Amino acid sequence: MAALIRGVLEGDARAVARAISLVEDDRPELEALAAGLVEHTGGSCTIGLTGAPGVGKSTIAAGLVGALRARDLRVAVLAVDPTSPATGGALLGDRVRMQAHATDPGVFIRSMATRGHLGGMALATPEAVRVLEAAGYAQIIVETVGVGQAEVDVAAATDTAVVVLAPGLGDAVQIAKAGILEIADVFVVNKADREGADVLVRELRQMLELGTPREWSPPVLAVTATTGAGLDALLDAVEAHVAWARGSGALEAKRRARLLQEVAALAAARLRVELERALHADDALVADLLARRLDPRGAAARLLHRLDGAHRRG
Amino acid sequence: MAALIRGVLEGDARAVARAISLVEDDRPELEALAAGLVEHTGGSCTIGLTGAPGVGKSTIAAGLVGALRARDLRVAVLAVDPTSPATGGALLGDRVRMQAHATDPGVFIRSMATRGHLGGMALATPEAVRVLEAAGYAQIIVETVGVGQAEVDVAAATDTAVVVLAPGLGDAVQIAKAGILEIADVFVVNKADREGADVLVRELRQMLELGTPREWSPPVLAVTATTGAGLDALLDAVEAHVAWARGSGALEAKRRARLLQEVAALAAARLRVELERALHADDALVADLLARRLDPRGAAARLLHRLDGAHRRG
Repeated sequence: MAALIRGVLEGDARAVARAISLVEDDRPELEALAAGLVEHTGGSCTIGLTGAPGVGKSTIAAGLVGALRARDLRVAVLAVDPTSPATGGALLGDRVRMQAHATDPGVFIRSMATRGHLGGMALATPEAVRVLEAAGYAQIIVETVGVGQAEVDVAAATDTAVVVLAPGLGDAVQIAKAGILEIADVFVVNKADREGADVLVRELRQMLELGTPREWSPPVLAVTATTGAGLDALLDAVEAHVAWARGSGALEAKRRARLLQEVAALAAARLRVELERALHADDALVADLLARRLDPRGAAARLLHRLDGAHRRG
Repeated sequence: MAALIRGVLEGDARAVARAISLVEDDRPELEALAAGLVEHTGGSCTIGLTGAPGVGKSTIAAGLVGALRARDLRVAVLAVDPTSPATGGALLGDRVRMQAHATDPGVFIRSMATRGHLGGMALATPEAVRVLEAAGYAQIIVETVGVGQAEVDVAAATDTAVVVLAPGLGDAVQIAKAGILEIADVFVVNKADREGADVLVRELRQMLELGTPREWSPPVLAVTATTGAGLDALLDAVEAHVAWARGSGALEAKRRARLLQEVAALAAARLRVELERALHADDALVADLLARRLDPRGAAARLLHRLDGAHRRG
């Protein structure tokens, strides 16, 4: 473990990869790893990149890596794949688009599944981000596919949430419906060279004007990731957001809330394992549930009561 | 409360709507409501309808309602909107498409946000479904926007998971990436009259053949919801899945697992409130976290240790 911690702190890519595998599997060794890295965390900026399948998130991520390297920053990309419950695996097709950066030692690229992690993506992501922070990557891009909760989770887990859209992939009303107007810090309309891009940009701006006023007004940027057009403006917008968030105290507040929430969620996930064990062992409770003599709320109350009694006796 | 329970059991739409509002807000009255309804639940079939924004889920839901009414079944549609964290609200734009059924007493349509519910959509949905079951709706359609976790949650919460796709909204590789090949019971390629629909149907079938073999092979159906083409075949496929699931024992196993998981999640959500309170009150722990002297895993362990001690003393 000491060697692994040293490897991560030295920015050794193999050590970083091994540490993230431990996160994926939620291994017990993580306690020592996390404790050994913690004082070296908190110094990076994180960018969340979300959007529906097909909008071009990976191409944008690859483009952002290039733009960040041109500014001489070390960059890590964490592509978070939603859990695939049956196989526990994740496809890595998008890695191909990153190959231009594969030999650059200032770039670390990793797809991550959350196969063994009790808390799923929402808890595995911040743990992996801390590994990357400790390894000295100044900018960390967290990319995930998803509309809805996945987007909200990634927005909460990163400093700047970039939501990517593309013409033809749902209209602005549906975007608003998914609840992402409120959580995005920057909007990107990718494939800006396609028909309908201008309309989408205009609709988004209108919806943002109609929505709840926020201290930070998210810009809506037109990008064509395949040609690189608009990527520098995107990076400028991200930096402007971080500068605002630092100055206003919003960044500190978000990071504090994020840490506290993570601790509570980790503790709850641990307790849930205990609860599930107690429930499966309680034949009478299960029988009452299945016979519809007891509803889940009543069953949860009974379970908590038992557990409390067990702790008191324990 | 007795009047509300009676109203729900009589299938009174206003009582049902009020009960679901209680679920949305996670009101304390729910304990009595759930206990009063539980023996009348478990008799309905539930269909989950998920997919990215723009694939036409609502049009399919409206079409399914028509097809189910033609088979003389009472139908409820629960449109679950992902939480909108900033406003706590949800847009109801898609209800418009349901207006054809608005005056039919055999149809109940409801959009649901999960604004106050501790456990989010994953816990609010089954509670609302039980209200609809107790109200005598034989078929309950749960529609939600989402790719990834939202899809997995809805699949777990319903008997038959229908995943809707449309040409131009991401290719089959991206669909596989989102982990939904493993959780869908029926695939629908909507907008089958559009270019690319045939290719998408073929790609999906190929991916399913290449994937992990399952006892139930999910059919891939071409549907044009706007004209109604393919909707009857979709309903037949859902019924075939339910018949298979009943015969094989898969339905009973899924419902049992679902109930047990719900109880554990409800209990964990209750404990999490207690954990958050304890954490926010522990100034020393928060200070150590913020100063990066303590990592979240270590903090969670300390918090659990304290809570355990408090319970022992309590």
